[in-house]
Amino acid sequence: MSSNADSRPLVSVVEVGPRDGLQNERIRLSTAQKVSLIDDLVAAGLTDVEVGSFVHPKWIPQMADTGDVVRGLLARDGVSYWVLVPNVRGLDGALRAGAEHVAVFLSSSETHNRKNLNRTIDESLENVADVVGGALERDVDVRGYISTVFGCPYEGDVDFGRVLRVTERLLDLGCAQVSLGDTTGMGTPGQVRAGTEAALAHFDVDQLALHLHDTRGLAIANALVAAEAGFRTFDASVGGMGGCPYAPGAAGNIGTEDLVNMLHASGFRTTVDLDRLLRVSHRLEVDHGATLNSAYYRYSRTAHRPNR
Amino acid sequence: MSSNADSRPLVSVVEVGPRDGLQNERIRLSTAQKVSLIDDLVAAGLTDVEVGSFVHPKWIPQMADTGDVVRGLLARDGVSYWVLVPNVRGLDGALRAGAEHVAVFLSSSETHNRKNLNRTIDESLENVADVVGGALERDVDVRGYISTVFGCPYEGDVDFGRVLRVTERLLDLGCAQVSLGDTTGMGTPGQVRAGTEAALAHFDVDQLALHLHDTRGLAIANALVAAEAGFRTFDASVGGMGGCPYAPGAAGNIGTEDLVNMLHASGFRTTVDLDRLLRVSHRLEVDHGATLNSAYYRYSRTAHRPNR
Repeated sequence: MSSNADSRPLVSVVEVGPRDGLQNERIRLSTAQKVSLIDDLVAAGLTDVEVGSFVHPKWIPQMADTGDVVRGLLARDGVSYWVLVPNVRGLDGALRAGAEHVAVFLSSSETHNRKNLNRTIDESLENVADVVGGALERDVDVRGYISTVFGCPYEGDVDFGRVLRVTERLLDLGCAQVSLGDTTGMGTPGQVRAGTEAALAHFDVDQLALHLHDTRGLAIANALVAAEAGFRTFDASVGGMGGCPYAPGAAGNIGTEDLVNMLHASGFRTTVDLDRLLRVSHRLEVDHGATLNSAYYRYSRTAHRPNR
Repeated sequence: MSSNADSRPLVSVVEVGPRDGLQNERIRLSTAQKVSLIDDLVAAGLTDVEVGSFVHPKWIPQMADTGDVVRGLLARDGVSYWVLVPNVRGLDGALRAGAEHVAVFLSSSETHNRKNLNRTIDESLENVADVVGGALERDVDVRGYISTVFGCPYEGDVDFGRVLRVTERLLDLGCAQVSLGDTTGMGTPGQVRAGTEAALAHFDVDQLALHLHDTRGLAIANALVAAEAGFRTFDASVGGMGGCPYAPGAAGNIGTEDLVNMLHASGFRTTVDLDRLLRVSHRLEVDHGATLNSAYYRYSRTAHRPNR
């Protein structure tokens, strides 16, 4: 028994910057640059990284090289590279590239699902069932995303009971974990507290993750509330990448630096080395011209100055 | 008895943008522009506005016209215009201009106090006693600020017991309220919860305010924790103004829009009309070239776009 055992609860961070971040930024990275970014993120302690998607390049051209990205990554013990797949055709591409971890997605709002996927939620669940079935046959892990769980930009309020039912369906189909997505950052601390507590009453903690966007500046408060409610897995994007590409300065995904700093400051531990992660963000800004929204990253840039 | 009585707890917001914000921004407003800004803030529902300081212009040239600003403001029922005064000389200037609400300040860290004010904390308390005495003789309200209550950039940790003792001294001297300042945004949610609970155990809720900076991205989470602990007065700066003037993009005071949005979304009410406030921020950006850090303001700029 170690004398310096760390009793702080461990929180897992799923880094989604190379996919959810980059697909919504104006900057473009080459395949080699993406592989280098992902390597750097792993070196900073991130053990789960979403590295791309097998969505048709007509829709998301930034992710057209995901097969090459996956082939360019080194397999590492304890590290999972996730790719997003919209359907069995996407799954085939992922499997051909050698992906071992795939993510499926649908919305908890009928209107958002129809606008985004051109299907009803039930039709999406049938599609997801095909993908999950195909993945499990090949011993590929599957993660599920549910969008707009705390509000839909088209419908407004979303019935959280429906979110829980869709979560249950995804788990029943064989998803190892379901990530609840506040896709456009509409969630409030009160909603997040109620929602995460309800989810934990129905499912195991390892079956759940929270995917927050900082659209209205509430992501860190929401993450704190969820961590205190007992959630132990959060998605995040290095530098807070993932804002609207047409609106520089608009906030996107919760920044990994901000999430990790808040967790470390609030009695939780993660596997992430925050100083190393800040150097990754710095390279994104300096080498690639990214405009990063992460408050903690911005602080780190100026921390050497007097009066700070 | 009204049938539509609002049972949400009322939280008071003290707008400090025209002082703590503008003195740390690169933009410069004329006296007329400052008066117009303050008028707009009052029209947006802010009832307490810090409008300037009577610190020697050698140190803070941006505030050199505070006397003219105060003389330019219309007296309005229910609205308090606050000015910062460092000493009896500053108090004399404030009184000559007709100020009826003054704020005094000192630090809870000896090193920060010495670097900022060239005095020990005890010497500062003697100076504050002279100012408060002179103000009360003239029926002028006094508010006290204590800096670095959750950490000092020079000393690191600050003993919160000392913060409580300095708070008690300021209240004993005759300050109506003491605002606890996280001057460089070092506070964590855990610290803020413990600190605000301890303060509420010692003092009345109306005697206390919290002054947060978003330096490391934790201000909104900290404000939520404090509001849930029972704090009912928060300082904030329109647009989040107050970052370091030498580091554009560095976060400053907690943004009034972000604070008000979080409070309204979390079951509290304020006197602030958020839509009107956003138009004030917009003018600061468009007419004066301010770079605003408020996440909710940035969101509002882009909210009309598709996919947001």
